[in-house]
This record gives sequence, C-alpha cells and structure tokens, in this order.
Amino acid sequence: MLKQREISVTIRKAKKDDMGQVYKMIRALAEFEKLEHTMTLDVKTLEKDGFDSENPAFTCLVAELSDGYIVGYALYYTAYSTWLGRSIFLEDLYVQPAYRKNGIGTQLFLAVAKIAHETPSKKMDFHVLSWNPAGDFYKRLGAVDLTIHEKWHHFRMDERCLNRLFANEPRC
Amino acid sequence: MLKQREISVTIRKAKKDDMGQVYKMIRALAEFEKLEHTMTLDVKTLEKDGFDSENPAFTCLVAELSDGYIVGYALYYTAYSTWLGRSIFLEDLYVQPAYRKNGIGTQLFLAVAKIAHETPSKKMDFHVLSWNPAGDFYKRLGAVDLTIHEKWHHFRMDERCLNRLFANEPRC
Repeated sequence: MLKQREISVTIRKAKKDDMGQVYKMIRALAEFEKLEHTMTLDVKTLEKDGFDSENPAFTCLVAELSDGYIVGYALYYTAYSTWLGRSIFLEDLYVQPAYRKNGIGTQLFLAVAKIAHETPSKKMDFHVLSWNPAGDFYKRLGAVDLTIHEKWHHFRMDERCLNRLFANEPRC
Repeated sequence: MLKQREISVTIRKAKKDDMGQVYKMIRALAEFEKLEHTMTLDVKTLEKDGFDSENPAFTCLVAELSDGYIVGYALYYTAYSTWLGRSIFLEDLYVQPAYRKNGIGTQLFLAVAKIAHETPSKKMDFHVLSWNPAGDFYKRLGAVDLTIHEKWHHFRMDERCLNRLFANEPRC
C-alpha cells in the first residue's frame, strides 16, 4: 500500500510530450463523470490545440512524481466576461485515485487560482456536477456555487441540435 | 409607436468604434440581470481586449439599423472542451427592449450558432438565469439546460475569495 502522506509532486506547465499521459486521465475523468460516451477528442488533436497553434486553445498544469510519472492535471483557458474582462475558466482538475488525499488536488487548484488572481478580473470559473463530492472541496477553498446563489444555469446547443438547425430539420 | 414587424437589421462583426454603443447595452443587460453592482469593466478595456491585442479576447456581432444605430449584440469567445475540442461560449446576447419581438435576437443567435457549427466540436455553451424568460427562447431553438439534464453547477472563485486565499486570511 502507498504511504500517501509522503508523496511529493512538482506542479509544472505541461509539455506536448505529456499529452499522452494527460489524455488517459481526461478519459478517466469522463468515465468518473459518467459522460465518456460524449468524448470524441483524440490525443493528436489535444497536442495540436495546445501546442502547435499560434493561439493555443488551453494551458495545462501537471503534478509530476520525481520519476516523471504524472498523477494529476489541471487544464484551463482564458474566458471573457463583459462585466470584468479576461478571466480563467478551469475546464478540468483531476488526480488519479491512488494518489488522492495527499493535497495534490489542492496544489493544482491553488496553482490555477494564483494565475486567475493575476488576471485583470481576478476570477476563476468552473463547472461541477451536483453529485460530485469535489464540490465540497472547492467550497472549502472559497468557491461559490452560482447555480444555487444566483440561479445561473448552463445551457448547450450540441452537435445534433446545431446540425438540425442548419439542415432545416425539426429542432431538438 | 414603432412598427416593429418592419424593422430590418444587418448582422455584422463589430468594429472597435462600435464598442461605445455595445458598452451601453452591456450595462443595460447587467441591470436587467440585477447584477450591475458586479460590473467593473470600462469601455477602454473592452476596446483593448477585443481589438488592440494579438489574441483578441472575444468576437462581437452587432445588429445594425440602416442608419448605423446598433439595437443588439452577441459576444462570444473560444472555449475548450477536453472531450470535444475548441468550441464557442456565448457570453452575452442582447436586444434593446424597444426592438424586441422582431426576430433580431434569433438572427444574432443563429449567426453565432452558425460559427459554432463550423468549429471542430460543433458546440455552443452559455449561461442563463433560471428566471430569465430567454431560457424558453433558447430551448425552442434546440438548446438543452445541462444544469437540469446533467446536474452541472456553475462555480466561481471571485476576487474577494482569491484575495483572501493568497493573503492567508480566513477563507470565504
């Protein structure tokens, strides 16, 4: 059994070469969220979007053991609020199950929060499933559930509905 | 009284010079949403972020009358999903009250949806207050309320809570 309290990680910006390891965790997170059937992205596109573009679509941080094995990641992009300006949207935060309860998730969250703190708007947004215990973890760090407190709902036009809209088929 | 059914608008990409008119509508939208006290952005920053940057933070479409008066706008940015890739986040959609019920909101929404349809992920996300009647308008166009259907909640670390986190003060 792992002596989990002794695990030490380095938090650093991800490189293109890390995307293979990160991609496996993205898939594991989608499975945890019971939404893996909605995942179509492949690792090549992830590499291209984050590293082979003039305007990278995201930034990724990883939590790395001393031997180079990656046990967690946080992925965010720059969003925009017309009330506050540029800000951070934290798309994913994940730590592999065997490495949890060591503060690695907190280290990743604080690293992204530090970046958000340095943007003009000083704001970091993210989405959490209501049944995910991580919601309580985020609240302990100071996050507010705006769906509860301000009644914001997250809407989506997905591929099927956009296709119908532009194929003049009956709407979703 | 305006003969509203006869109003014809052009939907086009906004220019920097339009931001003065757009900014007034951003403020009106914040007032409608009863959240104007949270708005700190000024028009100069809006101009800089959208037009004076190598990586513009957003794209804005406007609905313009033949005399150049702008009666509505839609503002979006590129978001990223680790399951689907680059996608569109519609931050704001607004039509001035005197010009509603003419299909201008639908034209603006369809113009952004068309752009989303051309992104790799074919997905457009946005947030709607639960009490805002616009939610029903979006649903009629095919949008799904993911807060209801998948239990996604919108969380935020705001400026006050980020400041406390990094000042070692008691957390929010």
